[in-house]
Amino acid sequence: MARTIVIIGGSAAGMGAAGAAQQVDPDVHVIIYTELADVGYSPCGIPYVHGKEIDSFDRLILQGKEFYADRGFDIHYETVVSGIDTKRHTIDVPGEGSVGYDQLVIATGFKYEQPKVPGSDLGNLYYVRDIRAAQRWDKILDSVHHAVIADAQPIGVEMATALAHRGIETHLVDPHPWPMAEITDPDIMEPVEESWRELGVHLHLNTRIDAFLGTERVQAVRTSNGDIAVDMVVVGTKKLPNNDLAAAAGVKCGSTGGLIVDEHMRTSVPDVFAAGDCVEVPQGTTGVPVQGLSGSHAYAQGKIAGSGAAGTLRSYSPVYVPWGLVAGKWMVGGVSFGETLAGALGIPYVKGVAEGISRARYYPGFKKIRVKLLAEPGTLKLIGAQLVGGEGIKERCDFLAMAARKGLTLHDIAWMENVYSPAMGALAEPMALAAQNGLTAVQS
Amino acid sequence: MARTIVIIGGSAAGMGAAGAAQQVDPDVHVIIYTELADVGYSPCGIPYVHGKEIDSFDRLILQGKEFYADRGFDIHYETVVSGIDTKRHTIDVPGEGSVGYDQLVIATGFKYEQPKVPGSDLGNLYYVRDIRAAQRWDKILDSVHHAVIADAQPIGVEMATALAHRGIETHLVDPHPWPMAEITDPDIMEPVEESWRELGVHLHLNTRIDAFLGTERVQAVRTSNGDIAVDMVVVGTKKLPNNDLAAAAGVKCGSTGGLIVDEHMRTSVPDVFAAGDCVEVPQGTTGVPVQGLSGSHAYAQGKIAGSGAAGTLRSYSPVYVPWGLVAGKWMVGGVSFGETLAGALGIPYVKGVAEGISRARYYPGFKKIRVKLLAEPGTLKLIGAQLVGGEGIKERCDFLAMAARKGLTLHDIAWMENVYSPAMGALAEPMALAAQNGLTAVQS
Repeated sequence: MARTIVIIGGSAAGMGAAGAAQQVDPDVHVIIYTELADVGYSPCGIPYVHGKEIDSFDRLILQGKEFYADRGFDIHYETVVSGIDTKRHTIDVPGEGSVGYDQLVIATGFKYEQPKVPGSDLGNLYYVRDIRAAQRWDKILDSVHHAVIADAQPIGVEMATALAHRGIETHLVDPHPWPMAEITDPDIMEPVEESWRELGVHLHLNTRIDAFLGTERVQAVRTSNGDIAVDMVVVGTKKLPNNDLAAAAGVKCGSTGGLIVDEHMRTSVPDVFAAGDCVEVPQGTTGVPVQGLSGSHAYAQGKIAGSGAAGTLRSYSPVYVPWGLVAGKWMVGGVSFGETLAGALGIPYVKGVAEGISRARYYPGFKKIRVKLLAEPGTLKLIGAQLVGGEGIKERCDFLAMAARKGLTLHDIAWMENVYSPAMGALAEPMALAAQNGLTAVQS
Repeated sequence: MARTIVIIGGSAAGMGAAGAAQQVDPDVHVIIYTELADVGYSPCGIPYVHGKEIDSFDRLILQGKEFYADRGFDIHYETVVSGIDTKRHTIDVPGEGSVGYDQLVIATGFKYEQPKVPGSDLGNLYYVRDIRAAQRWDKILDSVHHAVIADAQPIGVEMATALAHRGIETHLVDPHPWPMAEITDPDIMEPVEESWRELGVHLHLNTRIDAFLGTERVQAVRTSNGDIAVDMVVVGTKKLPNNDLAAAAGVKCGSTGGLIVDEHMRTSVPDVFAAGDCVEVPQGTTGVPVQGLSGSHAYAQGKIAGSGAAGTLRSYSPVYVPWGLVAGKWMVGGVSFGETLAGALGIPYVKGVAEGISRARYYPGFKKIRVKLLAEPGTLKLIGAQLVGGEGIKERCDFLAMAARKGLTLHDIAWMENVYSPAMGALAEPMALAAQNGLTAVQS
């Protein structure tokens, strides 16, 4: 008899699992539960529709519901799973009762950290998440003149840029001395801050939010530096693993709060896999568990989990976490550790920094690229990177993540070959310049 | 007493050698001979000025003559070296007599293959090379209505795009079935050909040039498919090592015609180094000597040669040759071998091909990227790549050159991590898709 795989969650990890399971075993019965009214769209695009860079939410829908129905996926929309009984191999679904599984994939994603201040229950606090809510909020945004973004975490950073593009007076409030301070270094964010100021974004750094003020709807935000009158607030706080259901069922969580999985994306409980923002996985250099990676990580993990659930165990390797996003007029990105994070974790490093350019200096439209490389003292193996620039950041982060994965050193990067053609690339590759500067610093 | 290093050639290799020599030994006496009236400009930018994408030749000048004088370089402009006596450690310079050296660096660059057809001595045959000639030709271009580009080698490809941008009726004539046929595959060049047609370029492929017709000035080009009336011809033939001087002095040349150098860029003759387009160096996978690489290769080789000439031997590694250029509205590029070249050399391969995108499919301005990866059968180690796309080609070629250098396999690339952020990169990295397709092809 065909096995039944139940997947809780219909985003990148869940849909990746569904596809991989069916690829491994075309006869498998895949049931997907999602709290939302849709699957197959990209939530990552929502800020760019709000910012009017993308002209319609329809563009974010990559596949219609028929596509999945045609593939034979049994998707239960707007359905909340209320419990998991791992011994009986069942889940509880209000209205459906007890539903049995042979293998379960937990892909419940993230939830935003709740602001623990008075007024957090007021209306007009926007948590960017699903496309239908985004469509409602987008209409509201038409009449918003003043907004606060609560916290300069990545989603807050994207939304600050988006609301500014839209012409809304935007206040970005964050308790840290620079944006995304847990994953970035201040020298990398400095051009972004300048670019936001040019866009009219008001930066309130080193500033705590003490309360949301108002009756029913938020009317002002009380901060440690005064009150800001607002029509709405975007809550751009940290993403936490959404694990209440799994934890209640006895699935073990790790130090980050993410579900613990082995290299095959198996949890602590037999026949239960997990993938995406709800799990933690080891960082490659240190083995330290990390959590809340990108949609491409979630999708890749989902494929491993789905494949395993369908009977073919595959392995997911430790991660080196290339990341990036557009902030103001710049692209920022990195790999594993910047100086701040390495310092916080007590990881020793040497560094090389350079300002390079993306195309020949005389070619119109060339962009500046700042590269910082962190390497292990002694071996000079790459352990992290931070970049900011006008183009070519994603591709360089991918390069450097592979370099870290493969144990490449500053020597390897310093003397790398690079394409030189005026309209495509400069004589000197910025990553190579940074590595050369790192070697000089070590030798002197 | 300070050593005297004589450098013949003032382009990337020569100037790289001069800088590195002085860095190794600040007291070294550096004398540079160049046939040209300038150093410190980028010849690679010339086609883009002709194409009006760069607004002035002045932009190509990176450093003025004073810069080099201030650094203490003794540069002899517009001076032809007529002989080398390697036993006496002297060179012959008309008007200067015999000039002694302790170490010599030969950086004489390339010359265009001469068309061996009647009329090759007519006027209005333009060989793109130095900036002063380019300035003169640029004025002539103002009154040119019809031009033939003789051969779709890289310089011919750049000039075809440039003249079309400038509004000149441009005919690109090449004996091969597709442009740059020695280094590219037809599927990679197909979008370029289409783009040229949109730009109004007339492609005459599989077409031989039999003669340049005219009296004094060329008035028509006789091809195997008929005559083309022209106001001028751009000779975009193959670049050959410019080695007559060195060969006459007994410096050994290899199978490509390039000077043979060891890993320290030492020629067959004591105290004589060489670098740039006049040498050949081993390709990394095969050891086959290759020649005529990019300006960044020439510069890197020059630094090794200059450093060695000044007393510090450094090593130059075998090359994997990332290359790229803009052609029509596309960027094309590659690493080491495409299918055509691998086939010609008898190198066995398996391949993976994919069409991907540079940013999220719903993000405005995303570009298509086609990636073809060639791997060694069995080990699946990357041995070559060909790419065409709208952006991100240089960076991916750099990645793949490093991947080939480090022995990475299709498995490594298939499961690489990648940045996903809608405005910067797509969920699926095109290189990973190509590698995954390669693995599927091998397994089936």
